[in-house]
Amino acid sequence: MTLDELNQLLQPLFPGLMGVRLTEATPERIVATMQVRADLCTTGRNLHGGAYMAFADTLGAVGTVLNLPPGARTTTIESKTNFLGAAPAGTLVSGESLPLHRGKTTMVWQTRISNEAGKLIAVVMQTQMVLPA
Amino acid sequence: MTLDELNQLLQPLFPGLMGVRLTEATPERIVATMQVRADLCTTGRNLHGGAYMAFADTLGAVGTVLNLPPGARTTTIESKTNFLGAAPAGTLVSGESLPLHRGKTTMVWQTRISNEAGKLIAVVMQTQMVLPA
Amino acid sequence: MTLDELNQLLQPLFPGLMGVRLTEATPERIVATMQVRADLCTTGRNLHGGAYMAFADTLGAVGTVLNLPPGARTTTIESKTNFLGAAPAGTLVSGESLPLHRGKTTMVWQTRISNEAGKLIAVVMQTQMVLPA
Amino acid sequence: MTLDELNQLLQPLFPGLMGVRLTEATPERIVATMQVRADLCTTGRNLHGGAYMAFADTLGAVGTVLNLPPGARTTTIESKTNFLGAAPAGTLVSGESLPLHRGKTTMVWQTRISNEAGKLIAVVMQTQMVLPA
Repeated sequence: MTLDELNQLLQPLFPGLMGVRLTEATPERIVATMQVRADLCTTGRNLHGGAYMAFADTLGAVGTVLNLPPGARTTTIESKTNFLGAAPAGTLVSGESLPLHRGKTTMVWQTRISNEAGKLIAVVMQTQMVLPA
Repeated sequence: MTLDELNQLLQPLFPGLMGVRLTEATPERIVATMQVRADLCTTGRNLHGGAYMAFADTLGAVGTVLNLPPGARTTTIESKTNFLGAAPAGTLVSGESLPLHRGKTTMVWQTRISNEAGKLIAVVMQTQMVLPA
Repeated sequence: MTLDELNQLLQPLFPGLMGVRLTEATPERIVATMQVRADLCTTGRNLHGGAYMAFADTLGAVGTVLNLPPGARTTTIESKTNFLGAAPAGTLVSGESLPLHRGKTTMVWQTRISNEAGKLIAVVMQTQMVLPA
Repeated sequence: MTLDELNQLLQPLFPGLMGVRLTEATPERIVATMQVRADLCTTGRNLHGGAYMAFADTLGAVGTVLNLPPGARTTTIESKTNFLGAAPAGTLVSGESLPLHRGKTTMVWQTRISNEAGKLIAVVMQTQMVLPA
């Protein structure tokens, strides 16, 4: 799948609702950006914790999909986030997801989210189950 | 704050975008529901993992707010989810968040999410920092 | 396996080194105690965070073993702990582990650890992979 | 504190019981090794999951201590481990812990554990609370 096709696929889904935009997607690395719209925020006009997690979950899942054998599917079985900083409304966040483990039954991806100033604002670790064809 | 005021407050924010609806909110227990709209799903027409996490994060944060001393604020510092089952598009999920720890500097909340059939589909543990006034 | 056989099996292993003592072990519930010896502590004469986690990991793994099909094995793939209170040297901690999910490929167990005063001092969630025979 | 003094301090405590040996300890990086003794193993003669976690917890806590203001103390408030591979009895594991966040109220450390072959076998993220003097 090309980057355009992936972004197209996500458009009607939750990542589309949030405005996640993949800018690089290979089996070794996923990169994306997201505009911190007011309707992605919590009180205080900062990105909602849930939006960080949904953004990262998307990247790790896409990364897994690009490593699946033909016909297989994947589902997130667990995800853990440490929040390290804020992202104010009107700015852009970016995320980079890298594989820590790509096995036959599970894959583990780590996503680092940075704010517009380049500061690391969250680290997410997630495990994807590989569901055979 | 009344339940209506809380729902009003969340309306223009990320929980509002997702359609989170608080149905009980006391310092001891937060309950909410969310319709599994197509635009909250991942491929395969099931609720996106990120939507589970954002839903739960909202409940734990609201629970913390209801326990804050005057003038204090809160932010999620970490959150961990185990995914145990699916929620298909068109159904309703519900969540119940209970405090495990309510201290002066941190609070820990556990949220259990169930699908329409009453099956437990996720458990979320999150830590909220209490930021003094 | 009987309770005595399980305790016997753990004796030469890490749980034996720590003094973990199973007092109930069924496929639905595992209960154990551990004496807070000085050599299980961190500075300040309180139980070391690692000892909480190793104690809980043992319970969740034993619980999984009691649910495995013949010939299958298990390994912990992830574990998350929230620490809620302290356990001073010379006291006894107890743990109860309950299954949240018992599937064909993974099981998820939650362990609650209490100190001698009956206060909840940690909650641990762990995922066990089921490795087929 | 020098490396020798730190190792001396840990000797009568849980890290001493396990044989954790710090080989580098600065405010920016903690490195340590541990021999996979038979009594640190689980069934199957591989390092017990709890021993991975206790090893990492030690490194992250030491790292935090080296960054504390005078008189302050620290305690682990949460820890999450992803297990990626095995460490057989008789081999050596090594761990490196790096700070992701060093704030006034919390610090977040990530520890990577490798087996003797140099393969990454676990990643641990932990949050330390800073308790003022």
